[in-house]
Amino acid sequence: MKSLGNHLLVELYSCDSDIINDKDRVEKILNQAAEISGATIIKSVFHKFSPHGISGVIVIAESHFSIHTWPEFGYCALDIFTCGDKIDNYKALNFLKKEFGTKNISVVESKRGILDMPVEKIRHKPDV
Amino acid sequence: MKSLGNHLLVELYSCDSDIINDKDRVEKILNQAAEISGATIIKSVFHKFSPHGISGVIVIAESHFSIHTWPEFGYCALDIFTCGDKIDNYKALNFLKKEFGTKNISVVESKRGILDMPVEKIRHKPDV
Repeated sequence: MKSLGNHLLVELYSCDSDIINDKDRVEKILNQAAEISGATIIKSVFHKFSPHGISGVIVIAESHFSIHTWPEFGYCALDIFTCGDKIDNYKALNFLKKEFGTKNISVVESKRGILDMPVEKIRHKPDV
Repeated sequence: MKSLGNHLLVELYSCDSDIINDKDRVEKILNQAAEISGATIIKSVFHKFSPHGISGVIVIAESHFSIHTWPEFGYCALDIFTCGDKIDNYKALNFLKKEFGTKNISVVESKRGILDMPVEKIRHKPDV
């Protein structure tokens, strides 16, 4: 048995509030993180809320990166959902932690789509 | 103490393979689900993979809906991440389950962004 996806649910606490309230910067950093992980970026969508806060999602060939920021609390909810064994999601996470000036972090790792079939039959989506 | 977000990690097994391989249909159904939940839709991004499989994300004012489908296995990984207390995420989930012809389902509910401060100080992003 093997899972189709690997999902990191990450809480980033005590981040730099100015950075995580800057839409262009958050979008750039998350796209860089996706590249660093080895993911293939398909589309990036970011939105700035009033008076503050950013929501952003990057659809990748291997699933998605998403972030929601609360600058007023220095907090970001980050999700890194990947498929296949070629993505280094912790490399992306370490980069993000540094770029956002994060002081405290918690990570829950979840296996998504556990199928009862031989490993060799499981594949992710290699072709964009 | 209260959390900022509520995140449902949903595995949908034994879905109708034709439906979950139809990009327009999956996009329409997920947007309907977001509306049914009471969410405010900001942007919807969907992508069809070759030879099969759909990835889609809807950014909502209250966080996001995302889906990744593997029609070859009848499986979808669904995430419903919402903030505030006005969204009925299980109403959306029941609708999706029915529309995708899902036979088996598993749900993990995760509280995101638990902050150590009085509840009245916690707010989500009410203004788009």
